[in-house]
Amino acid sequence: MRVARGPVLSRRGLLGGAAGLGLAGAAGAGLASCSDGRGEGLGDQQVPFYGTHQSGITTDVQDRLAFATFDVTSTRREDLADMLRTWTAAAEAMTRGAMVPGDSTSAEAPPADTGETVGMPPSRLTVTIGFGPSLFDRRFGLGDRRPAEFADLPALPGEILDPSRSGGDIAVQACADDPAVAFHAVRNLARLGRGTVVTRWAQLGFGRTSSTSSAQDTPRNLMGFKDGTRNIHSDDTATLDRYVWADGRSPQAWVRGGSYLVARRIRMFVETWDRDRLGDQEAVFGRAKASGAPLTGKDEFDPPDFGARGPDGEPVIPEKSHIRLAAFENNGGLRILRRGYSYTDGIDPRTGTLDAGLFFIAFMKDPAQFVTLQTKLGSHDGLNEYIRHVGSGLFACPGGVRDAGGCWGQGLFD
Amino acid sequence: MRVARGPVLSRRGLLGGAAGLGLAGAAGAGLASCSDGRGEGLGDQQVPFYGTHQSGITTDVQDRLAFATFDVTSTRREDLADMLRTWTAAAEAMTRGAMVPGDSTSAEAPPADTGETVGMPPSRLTVTIGFGPSLFDRRFGLGDRRPAEFADLPALPGEILDPSRSGGDIAVQACADDPAVAFHAVRNLARLGRGTVVTRWAQLGFGRTSSTSSAQDTPRNLMGFKDGTRNIHSDDTATLDRYVWADGRSPQAWVRGGSYLVARRIRMFVETWDRDRLGDQEAVFGRAKASGAPLTGKDEFDPPDFGARGPDGEPVIPEKSHIRLAAFENNGGLRILRRGYSYTDGIDPRTGTLDAGLFFIAFMKDPAQFVTLQTKLGSHDGLNEYIRHVGSGLFACPGGVRDAGGCWGQGLFD
Repeated sequence: MRVARGPVLSRRGLLGGAAGLGLAGAAGAGLASCSDGRGEGLGDQQVPFYGTHQSGITTDVQDRLAFATFDVTSTRREDLADMLRTWTAAAEAMTRGAMVPGDSTSAEAPPADTGETVGMPPSRLTVTIGFGPSLFDRRFGLGDRRPAEFADLPALPGEILDPSRSGGDIAVQACADDPAVAFHAVRNLARLGRGTVVTRWAQLGFGRTSSTSSAQDTPRNLMGFKDGTRNIHSDDTATLDRYVWADGRSPQAWVRGGSYLVARRIRMFVETWDRDRLGDQEAVFGRAKASGAPLTGKDEFDPPDFGARGPDGEPVIPEKSHIRLAAFENNGGLRILRRGYSYTDGIDPRTGTLDAGLFFIAFMKDPAQFVTLQTKLGSHDGLNEYIRHVGSGLFACPGGVRDAGGCWGQGLFD
Repeated sequence: MRVARGPVLSRRGLLGGAAGLGLAGAAGAGLASCSDGRGEGLGDQQVPFYGTHQSGITTDVQDRLAFATFDVTSTRREDLADMLRTWTAAAEAMTRGAMVPGDSTSAEAPPADTGETVGMPPSRLTVTIGFGPSLFDRRFGLGDRRPAEFADLPALPGEILDPSRSGGDIAVQACADDPAVAFHAVRNLARLGRGTVVTRWAQLGFGRTSSTSSAQDTPRNLMGFKDGTRNIHSDDTATLDRYVWADGRSPQAWVRGGSYLVARRIRMFVETWDRDRLGDQEAVFGRAKASGAPLTGKDEFDPPDFGARGPDGEPVIPEKSHIRLAAFENNGGLRILRRGYSYTDGIDPRTGTLDAGLFFIAFMKDPAQFVTLQTKLGSHDGLNEYIRHVGSGLFACPGGVRDAGGCWGQGLFD
């Protein structure tokens, strides 16, 4: 091997070194020293790992998702704490575009980093961790660290859940503008966790279905409709404080600055949907398909007029339409922060139809917010004819790691 | 609906119209008139649909793949021919970034286009079609149109094939720099084919693992190694003529200018691989992991010296290494054009390991080229400890559609 060693190698630096260009700045120096002569592109952008909150929640939604949940197989509390410390260092390095810490250059050992992203920029990678309710059972003595509001989701209307795509002791959400970078993060954490955790399920998302900033266009879901038009934006701190960030006065210090992540694998019956006429599709959502405007408006961002009635006396935005049922105006102001992705996993072998839909992710102050909304939507939403919730997870995301002295889950084991 | 109608709507134009900006140039005018004021980016690039050869073979490899195979359920030859005509028009429109031809604006009918890529640029979409050996059975009277060299692949070493991920009467390879654009193409063809075909299997690829041009960096596969360093380049017309394009004097006119597509879903046992020491990994490939250089060289593109021996008298590039076995120097000059993608489809429920690997696609003049190479590699390659071929398909891709008067499969039904 012709590359220098260091505690953390830059992926770009390793590439440069390998090409015989020298390794100046390769050891842990991050982006600034890793120019490859092509100029700084979008992929070069880094999202800071350290902060009051974890990144990947209000971060402008990246294009790609790799999500996985893990079950802890070790029964030793120390193993779990050690793994979380190792994971934190690896996640922090990968978000900088650096390799997983450790030796990737000795011929005598397995490389510390699996290597498939060598040469790739950080691509705005964020790695966000959450803990499932099951982690607070008797195994690790964490029962007294469970926040009062945190329990398994109840059975909800509109769901037929596959246990092999639901639950987990720990969840990791990796988002990046490059799918290889996102997958690499999850794969390497799984690898570092070997002996302590096993992967329970994983999901790739290939197109964001929401925006968290007015700088981002509203994307479309696989039903062809703009999704997340009324999402909370990252600069709306009052709404975030009220509906997204966990209670800052929680007796459980570790959850302050954190949030609850709800993941739902929502299968869309796209073949059935595609046979529906446009007028029906628009009635189901309550929006125009092309523009995304509410049926009472002209522009995507026009506020829906839920009181408006047509010449026939019926509401212009139908009673069972998705936006009417989900709107904060009709739910006592209730909001959640959406961060979902489209998915497709080939063909459903039972039916020959596409296994495709929405991998819904939302963050909220209290899981009860989702329960309230889904109880209503799952019972009344006209969309239910075309969708089914087939996977589910609830995870408590701790506050952010403040600096290099901290690590994920620190407040759990103090 | 507030958008104008036309035989083919531009996706960008539809967006502009919906936002109240007018619809100048929206009807089928393609890219030039569809500026969204953000300037022309990479996504705006179009790959021409018409030509001597189909696009998507020597086209600079796009970042994302959606691949699907279909079985014909109709027994009427006319249905098949009609569908191929409809598919051709749809594929041509989508590669221009236009919507699927037909009416997507009538409230009274299902939209002709499913709509999830409205507002997205062409993203270098290519749609490539191939016909499986089974299409030439008795159903459609095409037996006399089967080229002599075209038969099912024989059983090969290194494979344990899943029938639900193998075969098919027709294959469609959609490649684009945006996964939603690639998926949209396959989904809409499946939709247009309803009643004539059913989808047999589908595969998404999330990272190209080869280059067909010296303008493209060599990417890495999920084992962390550069893949396809010695691939044929699109400007090497002599090699393409000799090893990739089907026989120009074939008695089957429809296959002239075409090529044979071999698809192999190659599962990688990444957990096992990741535990192997770097020196072993490099011996398996015969290349340095970081630089991609052959073990006898310093630079990725240094020609391997298969005769070189180390101080111990052993070959520097081991006898069972992948590059030695696959090299054209050691196979009488034999070459194939590779165009593969990495894939990951979550967790293998039987083992809890990642279902990930390489979706290998290669184009060649004669399927025997692949049979020769895989017979050798499947028997001797050191890589076999870490991989298994689990899906397979062979398809004869016709020559390109020359102009708007032609369509896919034309030469089959004349």
